[in-house]
Amino acid sequence: VTSPLRIGVAGLGTVGGGLLRLLRQNEESLAARCGRPLQVVAVSARDRSKARGLDLSGLRWIDDARALAADPEVDLVVELIGGSEGVAREVVETALRRGVPVVTANKALVAHHGPALARMAEEAGAALAFEAAVAGGIPIIKTLREGLAGNSVKRVAGILNGTCNYILSTMRQTGREFADVLGEAQRLGYAEADPAFDVDGVDAAHKLALLAAIAFGRQVDFAAVHVEGIRAISATDIAYAEELGYRIKLLGIAERQEGGISQRVHPCMIPAAAPLAHVDGVFNAVEVEGDFVGRLTLEGRGAGAEPTASAVAADIVDIARDLRVPPFGLPVAGLAPAATRPMDSHVGCYYLRLMVVDRPGVIADVAAALRDQDISLEAMIQRGRDPGEAVPVVLTTHETREAQMRRALARIGELESCLEPPQVIRIETL
Amino acid sequence: VTSPLRIGVAGLGTVGGGLLRLLRQNEESLAARCGRPLQVVAVSARDRSKARGLDLSGLRWIDDARALAADPEVDLVVELIGGSEGVAREVVETALRRGVPVVTANKALVAHHGPALARMAEEAGAALAFEAAVAGGIPIIKTLREGLAGNSVKRVAGILNGTCNYILSTMRQTGREFADVLGEAQRLGYAEADPAFDVDGVDAAHKLALLAAIAFGRQVDFAAVHVEGIRAISATDIAYAEELGYRIKLLGIAERQEGGISQRVHPCMIPAAAPLAHVDGVFNAVEVEGDFVGRLTLEGRGAGAEPTASAVAADIVDIARDLRVPPFGLPVAGLAPAATRPMDSHVGCYYLRLMVVDRPGVIADVAAALRDQDISLEAMIQRGRDPGEAVPVVLTTHETREAQMRRALARIGELESCLEPPQVIRIETL
Repeated sequence: VTSPLRIGVAGLGTVGGGLLRLLRQNEESLAARCGRPLQVVAVSARDRSKARGLDLSGLRWIDDARALAADPEVDLVVELIGGSEGVAREVVETALRRGVPVVTANKALVAHHGPALARMAEEAGAALAFEAAVAGGIPIIKTLREGLAGNSVKRVAGILNGTCNYILSTMRQTGREFADVLGEAQRLGYAEADPAFDVDGVDAAHKLALLAAIAFGRQVDFAAVHVEGIRAISATDIAYAEELGYRIKLLGIAERQEGGISQRVHPCMIPAAAPLAHVDGVFNAVEVEGDFVGRLTLEGRGAGAEPTASAVAADIVDIARDLRVPPFGLPVAGLAPAATRPMDSHVGCYYLRLMVVDRPGVIADVAAALRDQDISLEAMIQRGRDPGEAVPVVLTTHETREAQMRRALARIGELESCLEPPQVIRIETL
Repeated sequence: VTSPLRIGVAGLGTVGGGLLRLLRQNEESLAARCGRPLQVVAVSARDRSKARGLDLSGLRWIDDARALAADPEVDLVVELIGGSEGVAREVVETALRRGVPVVTANKALVAHHGPALARMAEEAGAALAFEAAVAGGIPIIKTLREGLAGNSVKRVAGILNGTCNYILSTMRQTGREFADVLGEAQRLGYAEADPAFDVDGVDAAHKLALLAAIAFGRQVDFAAVHVEGIRAISATDIAYAEELGYRIKLLGIAERQEGGISQRVHPCMIPAAAPLAHVDGVFNAVEVEGDFVGRLTLEGRGAGAEPTASAVAADIVDIARDLRVPPFGLPVAGLAPAATRPMDSHVGCYYLRLMVVDRPGVIADVAAALRDQDISLEAMIQRGRDPGEAVPVVLTTHETREAQMRRALARIGELESCLEPPQVIRIETL
């Protein structure tokens, strides 16, 4: 086949621009790898007059992205609009329905509608690919779906949100507080004006739901992901983590356990020597534990125009080469129900930070609340003394069950001497 | 298709055993992923009576591996015999000639005969896959060939030999000498009775030649790889590296440069903060620098029955799924000549350790030899004094060209006060 693969790009933001540059800059090697030229023939974006610094000459401009997806002269649709509903969803569905392959970087869309979209793709015999939806330039979806296809995966854990990782890294390096560093990240363009999606863990949860589905051959179940963000992490916690030999990272973790798959996104204390502890700034990393491969770690740029364009391009090349793997690694009918284990049954160690009145008997009350739930203390730190005033007390526990910890925390929260709701961070040994 | 894919396994050493266990243990999920069962139907090994702890019931035993490769009831041949010539080569050629796909873990075979074998595979329309030949369980070949297909790769660098990495890590942790640690590695089974292949860098060079060919779309050119091993590294060098803020690693590095591709395997001093510096023991890691993805690092187990079986199984699944990519990412006719740059044109910084007589004027003579080749010193360390006796002197240089360094070293080696041939280790900033 030497006829070009005619590509339509819906959405010309950062990633769309990066993709156009990539397809031009590496045009020749891409054609050699695909055995045919890759040719962008049409583009669509909200505002035609916006200055993008892109040469769009020779490309058809189609105002309505849905019309681009329906265009008979487009062989492959790249959806870079974003959002789980609205135009993005219609674009993808329109293309798939007419049997046209779709490449998308839209994690929200696939996390919410993955199984339905995969079924449409399957019925129409069209490819649906979303490497760019998870961890930017890191080819983690291909790795799980193909590179580790011989394994039964036990666990996937990763730093999946560059904004949170940048904020936590900077807080550690500078000792500054969350709000201060977030503001700086917004000025530098590392965080959105509305940072909720990132700092509340939603973005990481979208990605984790996709990784879990592929790693374990399950239907995506975003609603079942336990999600906590990083807003409550203070400079004090980061300093204590350091003292205890840990780093605080926002991790997404999916594990195969008795009774189902656990899926959770929350701040974790991990040993300072763990490989993920050294992944700083806007980098992402994913660790996969397989029964034969053992531990495999992939680290790279998790966002940005160029790494994301790299992932989109890889999907395009796969399609041009006619490499066909079901979107989630198995035909939709073969995907098991998600069967997510509730967070209550999580077992692990915990870090607690309390603000208590410095007077005799307070620690005894806290210890009693833990003991009554069969929770063993591993360490206790109360630096400085200030009789009658508020002082921080830090406790770490041995392994216990989340439900027991919740009950103990409820009781500790009710202690008169406990002045703030306790801060809780789970410790992960990885 | 629901007829099983009938697999013949030639070679039942560690990896062969691991593969049989994997195919049994994950039989069900493999069948689901492939859309058809994977069935080992025949095996072959040198000694039928050897105890392997494997259940071989139900499998045909074929004494001659070449007959296995020619067997009409074998749909896919796995070659795990090893060696660049002899039976291994005949097995692979026999299968490819009759259009039967081949999966091999044999880096020597592919490094020496890659282009010819790829051509045979292409002509017969059969797949030839060798993910297991490089870095054990790390899916680096798939990553370069597919996951990064949108990039122009600038550099691939990696820790590609677990034996050397184990020895160097242990030397650093214990302060012991090479010969001592090698002996221990041999007793522990981490090094072969004849360690030359590993410690002289040949094994890493085989792997680098394959990575370079795929990363840059060139014909494999093993003969052009500059190879140095780790025998000459002493505990003294490791201690000095530590003092200077470096770690010593055996790296394989292939870079796209003006005038061609450089391919080299040699001990390197890398900054202690570099990601590869933290890859210890039998782990392997590969760093790829692409024009769009930026830096991507993959780390995992580089050898052993189970990780290697994981890579072999991934290739089998690709073939069962009918995913077809040319062995080196491009049709053979599209592979450029290797065009390797000679080592003489290498530019970098250097660490030199000299044993000199401690007397006035010696450093001046050494410095003059360097100056005459336009080489600037970055640092000089002479610890301790012992007038008239032998003392070590360590120098580090700014960037210079290998050819100039060689000329300077020749002159330094001739100095009467220089008691041993100078030790030279290249510094890589990565």
